[in-house]
Amino acid sequence: MKGQMMHYPLTTTVILEYGARVFPKKKIISIQPNGTRHEYSFSDMHKTCKKLANALVNKLGIQPGDMVGTFAWNHHQHVELYYAIPGIGAVCHTINVRLFPAQIEFIINHAEDRVIFADATLVPILEKIAPLITTVEHFIILNAPENFSSTLNNIILYEDLLKNVSEDFDWVEVDEHDACAMCYTSGTTGQPKGVLYSHRSTYLHAMGIIAPNAACISDKDRILIVVPQFHVMAWGFPYACVLAGAEMVMPSLHFQPDAMIKILSEEKINKANGVPTIWMGIYDAMKKNPPKEKLLLEEYLIGGSALPISLIEGFEKDFGIPGVHAWGMTETSPLGTVSRLQSKHERLDDAAQLKIRGKQGIECPCVEIRAVKEDGSIAPRDGKTIGEFEIRGVWVVDNYFKTNNRDSFSEDGWFKTGDVGTIDEDGYMEITDRSKDLVKSGGEWISSVVLEMAIMAHPKVKEASVIAIPDAKWGERPLAVIVLRDENEMVTGDELKQFLLRDFLSYQLPDSYVYVNSIPKTSVGKFDKKEMRRMYAEGELNA
Amino acid sequence: MKGQMMHYPLTTTVILEYGARVFPKKKIISIQPNGTRHEYSFSDMHKTCKKLANALVNKLGIQPGDMVGTFAWNHHQHVELYYAIPGIGAVCHTINVRLFPAQIEFIINHAEDRVIFADATLVPILEKIAPLITTVEHFIILNAPENFSSTLNNIILYEDLLKNVSEDFDWVEVDEHDACAMCYTSGTTGQPKGVLYSHRSTYLHAMGIIAPNAACISDKDRILIVVPQFHVMAWGFPYACVLAGAEMVMPSLHFQPDAMIKILSEEKINKANGVPTIWMGIYDAMKKNPPKEKLLLEEYLIGGSALPISLIEGFEKDFGIPGVHAWGMTETSPLGTVSRLQSKHERLDDAAQLKIRGKQGIECPCVEIRAVKEDGSIAPRDGKTIGEFEIRGVWVVDNYFKTNNRDSFSEDGWFKTGDVGTIDEDGYMEITDRSKDLVKSGGEWISSVVLEMAIMAHPKVKEASVIAIPDAKWGERPLAVIVLRDENEMVTGDELKQFLLRDFLSYQLPDSYVYVNSIPKTSVGKFDKKEMRRMYAEGELNA
Repeated sequence: MKGQMMHYPLTTTVILEYGARVFPKKKIISIQPNGTRHEYSFSDMHKTCKKLANALVNKLGIQPGDMVGTFAWNHHQHVELYYAIPGIGAVCHTINVRLFPAQIEFIINHAEDRVIFADATLVPILEKIAPLITTVEHFIILNAPENFSSTLNNIILYEDLLKNVSEDFDWVEVDEHDACAMCYTSGTTGQPKGVLYSHRSTYLHAMGIIAPNAACISDKDRILIVVPQFHVMAWGFPYACVLAGAEMVMPSLHFQPDAMIKILSEEKINKANGVPTIWMGIYDAMKKNPPKEKLLLEEYLIGGSALPISLIEGFEKDFGIPGVHAWGMTETSPLGTVSRLQSKHERLDDAAQLKIRGKQGIECPCVEIRAVKEDGSIAPRDGKTIGEFEIRGVWVVDNYFKTNNRDSFSEDGWFKTGDVGTIDEDGYMEITDRSKDLVKSGGEWISSVVLEMAIMAHPKVKEASVIAIPDAKWGERPLAVIVLRDENEMVTGDELKQFLLRDFLSYQLPDSYVYVNSIPKTSVGKFDKKEMRRMYAEGELNA
Repeated sequence: MKGQMMHYPLTTTVILEYGARVFPKKKIISIQPNGTRHEYSFSDMHKTCKKLANALVNKLGIQPGDMVGTFAWNHHQHVELYYAIPGIGAVCHTINVRLFPAQIEFIINHAEDRVIFADATLVPILEKIAPLITTVEHFIILNAPENFSSTLNNIILYEDLLKNVSEDFDWVEVDEHDACAMCYTSGTTGQPKGVLYSHRSTYLHAMGIIAPNAACISDKDRILIVVPQFHVMAWGFPYACVLAGAEMVMPSLHFQPDAMIKILSEEKINKANGVPTIWMGIYDAMKKNPPKEKLLLEEYLIGGSALPISLIEGFEKDFGIPGVHAWGMTETSPLGTVSRLQSKHERLDDAAQLKIRGKQGIECPCVEIRAVKEDGSIAPRDGKTIGEFEIRGVWVVDNYFKTNNRDSFSEDGWFKTGDVGTIDEDGYMEITDRSKDLVKSGGEWISSVVLEMAIMAHPKVKEASVIAIPDAKWGERPLAVIVLRDENEMVTGDELKQFLLRDFLSYQLPDSYVYVNSIPKTSVGKFDKKEMRRMYAEGELNA
């Protein structure tokens, strides 16, 4: 027997209409690429979205199911694209501007983007690959300076596109299972793979991220969206904020620590999101030059790569601002887990609390996570038994775009994350490694990430990464790559070994310690271990 | 083009499994009907649900689509029924124990309940109507005392039903649009009407009520569920709490103020829900006998009937505990609107803030509300223009059970609430009246609810209700029915008129003031205006 509740499809247009109806006066603020400040309301945004939808359909001839690319920083125009493109039944394909040009070319051709909306500052990247791009009919330029020119063909300025276009537009009716957006994984191995989000998954993810156990977003908040809009839809915040009536502040490309601190202060931000690299930069800058007035920042959501727990500790001790650790992937929209303390943890001392907060956290409603042991059985939730994490749920990828490759899926349809670790009896997941980043030494697994965290806890170490290097006797051995906090303040490998011996068995310690000025990172700011392994192999990393 | 996200139906079983997996040690505490305290974990509850599901299928022969009634107070067994019945694809039909016996009989026969799970204390009600009930094959008795006996046929004690039943059970696969629960409206006019909730609507409603803008529920909370489980699924809290990892405390029938205060204190409750009558009782009892230790209660969600703003004011001033006003109906699952202040309101003084908090509040995501004027046009959101509220959304009724009567729906499919009022430019809805409770005097509408609130603000008045009475000259005129706070402290009609003249025009004031010992209430604690009109007509209300 069916229930007798209304048919009410969950779409991004429902979010947009909700925000404009219920929170018409709430603000979206952009610090534009050229540094000027732009402010308007949800109601204004809604009107522009209608014009944009009109232009997409009637000027550019975009049809339901078409791909429309974005190649842009975080600002209100990019938010408009997040709503207007799905609102006509097309797919908002956010292209990661930090990939290698060859990857960008691959992605655009693979997606078959018909139009690309690009920030003027990013046009040079597109100009380089333009001859190889086969499907794009128009480039729409955002934030173009006066006298802008380009070698790209078929250029239209965003403002011109919207000129003489009516605000009257009837949204295209879509099924909630229809695609609304697409994002390619950064692909540390092989070509990037597309994840095609549905209206339903996007809507539900927004509801999920609003929850108090997750990002806890309400109409009292003013949120700095640091995560680039070309990364997993900025963690879904541009949808979640409209659904919650939270004000959004978009920093475009102003991700430098001083610029971030200025925005946090001047815009009276109380919540923010971002990857560890960003928060590490902000923390270091604030240490050197403490803000005169206390920031209003109440907490920051941090994730996207392994988190040095000393960062959370330092930020809270020095500035009274707690970080909330979260985990997810492009394939999971990204919300997977969030680590907040529960009331039972209030009795624990700071160190014990910090240990819990450093974990990836508990899985959110609408997803399920399990740790699968090497023998294929499910690891018990005992905080000890290691397994590879698999995830399924309402906003988890079912298949990559245009591929039938099932390598990333279990036989019963769960997505294999490639992350390895434990789940404890309170439900907290802890990633100890990417499965391919484990060091297998003499038949034993050594977690490179745990080692990295431990080394980075040394006061003289700024960054540390551990990779597996081939070893004739043990198969593999760990090698530590170190960036000193101050190059005049050396810490030797022997000193580090002594430091680490408090927490590790000696066989688990790196044999070699290599000092570098900076650790190579991927386009999304993660330690690029593939690159480090290559450097080692080619003799570029010498102890 | 379809998105490529996993097929993952949203069902009550997903909620149950999530809670047991992620928050296995979280507690459900019941103060049983006989006063004893029962405590167990989400994990224990999950195991019992599996046994119960097994027993429903294999001992009682319940099939998917069958109706299973509950006739019970708030306790863990009733929570088990909330999950186990939908978990086998059947429908959990919660019967309002406070209806008239003839209505209860109608509801059971109309729903065609095959089994009823009844609290022992409520069995006498069922015994009276048993000969007229035609479909029930078994009565399962909850919380039976020793030597329990009854004239009902086919009785099984709950404990016996679960005896020798395995915890191994594969949940029945359901579609998310399948029915999971049913609740009849209390029906102030005509027979009660059934609202058939789906798995999808129930799941999404739970996510909706968790949100910070709504009830704001997290795994830090311990919540007293005062709203009876036979009223709109206790506002969805037994689902929301499991999804959020919040601990639940269930008071059975111990709704008396002193019992409530004892539970609030002893169980360290930090959040609670309930109707104004309950909170008024608690407030009065606390005023008379202030608790020695400050309650840990951080806020209470209050709704279900018109809210005297003096209650919220008094509770906060005297005990530092804010009330959060919410509005909904059986037909809306019930979450419609919630009234919380936004950051912009922080600058306002107490009186202005209170005025906003007294409104019904802003509509939640997944529902849409509009005010429709008498001429059929949509009222602007200006805080002035009055219209009848209509609502649609993902957890709003599409049709009543077994009826094709469309009287309650607009031509374009919105549900007509029967409530009348305004929406302001910040999105706050304010109900001034039930459409049928407006007093139409000389062609002008007078809001009975606004009058009631104003009269109840007088310090000597405990309760006041206003009804329309026929008037030869004006068509209708308001009549006030008054309960004094202390019968030795009289306030005359003339004194009340003077008091009211500060806020009303003289034609808006009641001509007659009738003093009674108590105001007749409906089974759900609302002023029973139909009954008062009858009493007036039959000369039982004399000024």
